Amino acid sequence: MTLRTHQCGTLTKADVGKEVTLSGWVQRYRDLGGVLFIDLRDRTGIVQIVFNPAFSKEAHEIADRARSEYVLTVRGEVVHRDPETYNPNIPTGEIEVRVKHVEILNPAKTPPFPIEDGIDVDESVRLKYRYLDLRRPEMQKTLMLRSKAAKVFRDFLDENGFIEIETPILTKSTPEGARDYLVPSRLHPEEFYALPQSPQIYKQLLMVGGLERYYQIARCFRDEDLRADRQPEFTQVDIETSFLSRDELLEMMEELVVKLFKETIGVDIPRPFQRLSYQEAMDKYGSDKPDLRFGLEIVDITDIAKGSDVQVFASVAAQGGVVRVLNAKGCANWSRKELDDLKPFAERYGGKGLAWVTVKDGEWRGPIVKFFKPEEIAALTERLGVEEGDLLLFSADKKKIVCDVLGNLRLKVGRQLGLIDDSVFKFAWIVDFPLLSWDEEAKRYVAEHHPFTRPRDEDLHLFDSDPGAIRAQAYDLVLNGYEVGGGSMRIYKRDVQEKMFKALGFTMEQAREKFGFLLDAFEYGTPPHGGIAFGFDRLIMLLAGRTNLRETIAFPKTANASDPMMDAPSRVEREQLAELHIRTVPKPGAKPQQPQQSGQQQELQPQAE
Amino acid sequence: MTLRTHQCGTLTKADVGKEVTLSGWVQRYRDLGGVLFIDLRDRTGIVQIVFNPAFSKEAHEIADRARSEYVLTVRGEVVHRDPETYNPNIPTGEIEVRVKHVEILNPAKTPPFPIEDGIDVDESVRLKYRYLDLRRPEMQKTLMLRSKAAKVFRDFLDENGFIEIETPILTKSTPEGARDYLVPSRLHPEEFYALPQSPQIYKQLLMVGGLERYYQIARCFRDEDLRADRQPEFTQVDIETSFLSRDELLEMMEELVVKLFKETIGVDIPRPFQRLSYQEAMDKYGSDKPDLRFGLEIVDITDIAKGSDVQVFASVAAQGGVVRVLNAKGCANWSRKELDDLKPFAERYGGKGLAWVTVKDGEWRGPIVKFFKPEEIAALTERLGVEEGDLLLFSADKKKIVCDVLGNLRLKVGRQLGLIDDSVFKFAWIVDFPLLSWDEEAKRYVAEHHPFTRPRDEDLHLFDSDPGAIRAQAYDLVLNGYEVGGGSMRIYKRDVQEKMFKALGFTMEQAREKFGFLLDAFEYGTPPHGGIAFGFDRLIMLLAGRTNLRETIAFPKTANASDPMMDAPSRVEREQLAELHIRTVPKPGAKPQQPQQSGQQQELQPQAE
Repeated sequence: MTLRTHQCGTLTKADVGKEVTLSGWVQRYRDLGGVLFIDLRDRTGIVQIVFNPAFSKEAHEIADRARSEYVLTVRGEVVHRDPETYNPNIPTGEIEVRVKHVEILNPAKTPPFPIEDGIDVDESVRLKYRYLDLRRPEMQKTLMLRSKAAKVFRDFLDENGFIEIETPILTKSTPEGARDYLVPSRLHPEEFYALPQSPQIYKQLLMVGGLERYYQIARCFRDEDLRADRQPEFTQVDIETSFLSRDELLEMMEELVVKLFKETIGVDIPRPFQRLSYQEAMDKYGSDKPDLRFGLEIVDITDIAKGSDVQVFASVAAQGGVVRVLNAKGCANWSRKELDDLKPFAERYGGKGLAWVTVKDGEWRGPIVKFFKPEEIAALTERLGVEEGDLLLFSADKKKIVCDVLGNLRLKVGRQLGLIDDSVFKFAWIVDFPLLSWDEEAKRYVAEHHPFTRPRDEDLHLFDSDPGAIRAQAYDLVLNGYEVGGGSMRIYKRDVQEKMFKALGFTMEQAREKFGFLLDAFEYGTPPHGGIAFGFDRLIMLLAGRTNLRETIAFPKTANASDPMMDAPSRVEREQLAELHIRTVPKPGAKPQQPQQSGQQQELQPQAE
Repeated sequence: MTLRTHQCGTLTKADVGKEVTLSGWVQRYRDLGGVLFIDLRDRTGIVQIVFNPAFSKEAHEIADRARSEYVLTVRGEVVHRDPETYNPNIPTGEIEVRVKHVEILNPAKTPPFPIEDGIDVDESVRLKYRYLDLRRPEMQKTLMLRSKAAKVFRDFLDENGFIEIETPILTKSTPEGARDYLVPSRLHPEEFYALPQSPQIYKQLLMVGGLERYYQIARCFRDEDLRADRQPEFTQVDIETSFLSRDELLEMMEELVVKLFKETIGVDIPRPFQRLSYQEAMDKYGSDKPDLRFGLEIVDITDIAKGSDVQVFASVAAQGGVVRVLNAKGCANWSRKELDDLKPFAERYGGKGLAWVTVKDGEWRGPIVKFFKPEEIAALTERLGVEEGDLLLFSADKKKIVCDVLGNLRLKVGRQLGLIDDSVFKFAWIVDFPLLSWDEEAKRYVAEHHPFTRPRDEDLHLFDSDPGAIRAQAYDLVLNGYEVGGGSMRIYKRDVQEKMFKALGFTMEQAREKFGFLLDAFEYGTPPHGGIAFGFDRLIMLLAGRTNLRETIAFPKTANASDPMMDAPSRVEREQLAELHIRTVPKPGAKPQQPQQSGQQQELQPQAE
């Protein structure tokens, strides 16, 4: 006995006359003059099924007991609807199924929220009843999109000679492992595994191992305080290749991304992707993940500001800071309140304030205007392309702060002016990241990416003179203001690695202590290699047009890393901890632990499968 | 500058005349009269490259410095070899590459073992230098086979409407979680996540959630004492469907398996697969995962033994035990030592001994023969098909013990007699497992699979009369004596679930305490569903013709669950444990813990990617 010959959402006029068996859930039921109409839903959509006592008295009687979310299986004939009852909102709207036989496979309690799209229900309720939330078409569509996206990634990588290789989840804690999840075990008292923050080390070892092209859709873990867009476990498409140059790899990855967008949501992404150096991205957009769907570029005026009578401009410029301007075109009519709000906005990003100038009726107005010399106004007008109606927003500070303030202001203004087209996908590669950054506290350089990131060949001589100026063969892929991927070419030559360690303040001996077997591995004939990792959850979020990573994950954690459905994490039995050779340390002032008592509870354990 | 236009192992006579760029490792080098021949190896195989000072003095000089495992990139022309130097052992044996340009990309230390197949090196050394072990062709072939197998699984499941869905790794500890790995975290003092032993609960919730067809190539974890064929983390192909019957699912899975074997190793597996009830498998082969590549069936003679003068036969039969015989055809000439070894062999499986009878020169010999009555010999001769040269092996005990003893003896004899054809893949479904088994200690029934396993419809009435006789809609897929998959249909009807809990000795209230939200979930319209999980590591092992799971995993753990390459698990910094609100408890008598001191060690941390 087959419970299904067809799927609800796929029936069309071409099926009229066929006898079909359908199974699914009751979306809606209504009785019209003794005839029962039920919308039956499965993964593919909805179809109207009709119980008329004239066709089958028995079927009508059984169906009459059905309520929302009951599971039914029905057998009947596909027929045309009366044209006046066509439902143009669903693909099956011109047909219905005249039911001869029905079975209630399972009844259902009334769900805590309606099983439909666009519901306004607290997310905590949706997560607690995730198994019902997942019945909603928009959730199912997102998970199907995710599955399809994984397939596109895999098919492309398979076709290009990449081997899918699984790397361990139970691995080793790395020094400075504050963000590692640790795992005790029965067999190894006082020792711990760590869950991987990424398969970075393994993928490089696979290149040493001659596998040449590796990929994995890998689960990664970080025990961090969570922001809205982070999950304690997340998925990345992890890729590494040997014998490819940076440009060969980036071009291949562009092809992959273009294919991904075409085959999942049918969008054509033009190639080649724009490339911006890190420097350019920071200067023009105040961010290394700029939203390039709109212009509003930031302009440097430090040279003009140097001789300015605006005290703060002159002194910042003298102290090596920068003065930059965002010309908010057409915003001269901002209210007093909007202008006043600029100061706290700047402060949120570490700035002290923002100077503003409005251009109205041909006149520059604002607190600082009186300090401008006419030739400065002329210079600014030319450089900033000042026109009637503009609002000029000035930030003067250390470069990093100015970038942060104006970068974020740019996004705010762009949104406010409606410059952002949500239907556009604007990719760019950010390249030439700095290899090193100066750590004020440690008084030494630290690796921006990691200590195996390869410098640009033409910058190698700078190790001796100006390490901070070395550009790395590192790259990020950004999309609409999000970082959706990132990676680098790796150092594979011993002399370059030694220079890198020297710049970081390590002797080779110290380095060996820290990086142990990885440096050993590199001694045995390491090929040139490099790779990238795509943030899979975030890509799916953008593909699906959602704004929350949790919408892309079947069973996500909340912002405090817990699962309200499963009640995880949770207290465990005393015996379990004893077997693992650990005990808990209560938080000072916390209630003492009340571990679960062990009982006769061996049943939930899923066996075998 | 491209490092590769072609791959070493794929060049053929069709490429003669082409200029190619190759990159790879030096497998072998030899100087013949001033001309240097190097076997260059990449992932695809080996090609001979030739450095003749007559073609390029510079290239010859550079190449002369190359040693084993050096990484080279070369450019040159593909030419025919002299026919007398053809190498029929490699696919590229009729050509060679005349090198004009060479670059040493990286030198290499001499590896601790040769990079070639079939090496006789201690596995601990191979695991410590796994990144070199992985260069060996047989390891690379196995990993490529694994990648290909995953693709076949995925393609088939995608084509059949299955959605790939990732379920959490950080999940909840289940009652009786002795085998769970637990994970503390910074955010949740005194609480723990657990790593999943399988996605069992999630996949059932996905069915409640209406996803209808789910799969995942899922990592699973068990903190067990490890046997040779277990890993603390392992991979299973996890599958669940709604609205399919057991037979519909099994047929689909057969199709999948046939496709897997065809597309990975080119072997045709005949369908349909044999089906054996659990009862039949135990009776005939003494095992629920019988090796069906040979016969040697076990035969029950309890009825004959009942009236026997062989005391132990009669008394075992009287006490409800069984007497069974393995007729080891043609083994009558076993030595005294072989016969004496039978007793310790039986004892290993809980038996007390084995009685034997040899049939030589038409005569039955052995210690028990004198107790046989002529009509018993006649009955045995007929039932066992006794012939000249046979060795009859009798086991009398509780049924479970007899099955274990004779089942293992059957394997031993089968191997010894050369009855096992290693080139044959013999699949079977074992079905109709018992739903419940009696727990002597707890004095109650326990679930054989898990408490949501669906009973066979025709056995439902036995809940009231004979619960132990109920057969489950559970099934295992066995291949050549290994269990390679297993699953069941699940209970979805409340009344059946209540009967099941009652049989297990729980009230619904107790059950709700134990199974909590899962039972809640089942109240909201659960579809009929069921699934299966394939042991991916073991399938790959059998596909690759290996005998050790570790050979199928890129970075496996040793038998004591450690990784000698990474040195995991390992001690961690004191601060890390404090942040996780735990401390370690030394084993009684163990040395006190010496945690690592935290240092200026923030570098190994792989960033971003």
